[in-house]
Amino acid sequence: MAFDSIRTPAGRAENVLGGSVNYFSIAASFHVPVRVVGVVGQDFPKQHLEWLSSRNIDVSGVEMAPGKTFHWVGEYSGDMNEAKTLTTALNVFEHFDPKLSAKHRESPYVFLANIDPKLQLKVLEEVRSHKLVVCDSMNFWITGKPDELKQTLKRVDILSINSGEAALLSGETNLVVAARRIREMGPIAVVIKRGEHGAWLFAGEEMFIAPAFPVDRVVDPTGAGDTFAGAFVGHLAGAGVSRDLAKKDPRAWQSALRRAVVSGSIMASFTVEDFGIRRLMELDRTELEAREKRFLTMMTI
Amino acid sequence: MAFDSIRTPAGRAENVLGGSVNYFSIAASFHVPVRVVGVVGQDFPKQHLEWLSSRNIDVSGVEMAPGKTFHWVGEYSGDMNEAKTLTTALNVFEHFDPKLSAKHRESPYVFLANIDPKLQLKVLEEVRSHKLVVCDSMNFWITGKPDELKQTLKRVDILSINSGEAALLSGETNLVVAARRIREMGPIAVVIKRGEHGAWLFAGEEMFIAPAFPVDRVVDPTGAGDTFAGAFVGHLAGAGVSRDLAKKDPRAWQSALRRAVVSGSIMASFTVEDFGIRRLMELDRTELEAREKRFLTMMTI
Repeated sequence: MAFDSIRTPAGRAENVLGGSVNYFSIAASFHVPVRVVGVVGQDFPKQHLEWLSSRNIDVSGVEMAPGKTFHWVGEYSGDMNEAKTLTTALNVFEHFDPKLSAKHRESPYVFLANIDPKLQLKVLEEVRSHKLVVCDSMNFWITGKPDELKQTLKRVDILSINSGEAALLSGETNLVVAARRIREMGPIAVVIKRGEHGAWLFAGEEMFIAPAFPVDRVVDPTGAGDTFAGAFVGHLAGAGVSRDLAKKDPRAWQSALRRAVVSGSIMASFTVEDFGIRRLMELDRTELEAREKRFLTMMTI
Repeated sequence: MAFDSIRTPAGRAENVLGGSVNYFSIAASFHVPVRVVGVVGQDFPKQHLEWLSSRNIDVSGVEMAPGKTFHWVGEYSGDMNEAKTLTTALNVFEHFDPKLSAKHRESPYVFLANIDPKLQLKVLEEVRSHKLVVCDSMNFWITGKPDELKQTLKRVDILSINSGEAALLSGETNLVVAARRIREMGPIAVVIKRGEHGAWLFAGEEMFIAPAFPVDRVVDPTGAGDTFAGAFVGHLAGAGVSRDLAKKDPRAWQSALRRAVVSGSIMASFTVEDFGIRRLMELDRTELEAREKRFLTMMTI
């Protein structure tokens, strides 16, 4: 959970609600009920937690710690493909130690957002009988805690990262080769997010190239990757897809993952249309389904 | 027709065979017989013209003029999305004046490669009963001869240009809006080529997003656009698609153009695997069909 202050060629926004947990859980909640674990400071608006609850998002795992909420200040320029971080105030996030309730520990679908890989592994060890684990990471951990990250990756089913991170993690600039290397590290599938150019899925033998939905105007790309992950995991959870399917029915597994990627791409296309989670908060199912339908038309021969 | 000297991060090549005509006609010849009109200097290897003839490419319209063949020296760096021109020696191309035989004038499918829009229009006026006209252009003409280009565009059915050119021609950076503007200038369909990110087709009401085939290693992107156009037009000519189909059966028109775009993307993916037309010259139908099959798997949910 975070407050973000963001400048883009389209404008600026101060202290808007953000954070992986927000993007992910709102996106996933279109498919399934969600339980989140995270931390906020005493400055965090209670109404927002209430709003999340109203959307079938269980926020009992959101701890309120003494101090301020994580605050990120960033800037995008040019094609907005990469953010430049101006300030990172970790605040209460600095000593975040995810606490899982009995209920959390029974979650069949687990998404490990981009935190210290040691914490990711700790969470994973507490969840007893998961059916599918999807994980994100970033440059900071790939260079800073490579061994810990590799330990975590051994226990992860699907890794969802962006192209720069995939190159850094694998030491390969060619993304097809990069994905192969990453799959040797543990994950049976890899999704490489490519911003406005869509996503590549490596599951089974043949890759899947999903375009991004071409939005009229990108206002703020922050959170697009987390939104993608939310709809992706949400779709798989909604369809009851577990890692066992990869062996039992490889075609069905591949097909489900492809649909999940498309689901992720569509949801992310809404996020970038406004600052923070604004657009996602006002999104309704009719609008989502209409875009889904259009998108399928746009990508089918 | 040209000799190119090219430097890319993958290496360099001196005086290799190139030129729109070469890329286009070899690509198109996989679908239909081709007639080319162009000019070479006295230094141009006759064996190459003979090789083209052996591939069902009628080179009787290739004039040999006193002097040297067009020579381009260019360099690509980084992601190789844009060439930096180091030298352009127009040579015999400077006074190129396309001469069409009676046979040329009966061609049902016309591709106007990237030359002076006045010459494009002249050619078009000579061809009597064409069924479909596809046109290319570039920044040099868009800024240098905008009025002439607009006259030409009024008579063109499909414009095939890259994203930078589309933005320049339309004055719009958003490519969806750019395509709309360009279609108001005359073409009933627009293909915007996006290099390694594929191509966008605007035909009928809904756009089509075609990815590029992800090659293991891009050696030289020169000619990818012309190769794309060759397979695109070749596919349409092979399928007997004329501009009339757009009104008669909009669905069939759109579907045919989508298939043609995919055909173009696949063919272009071979061109970039080596310098100049080398890869295209050694390409066989089996290899092409195998990649086509793989590509369709990669883009289908």
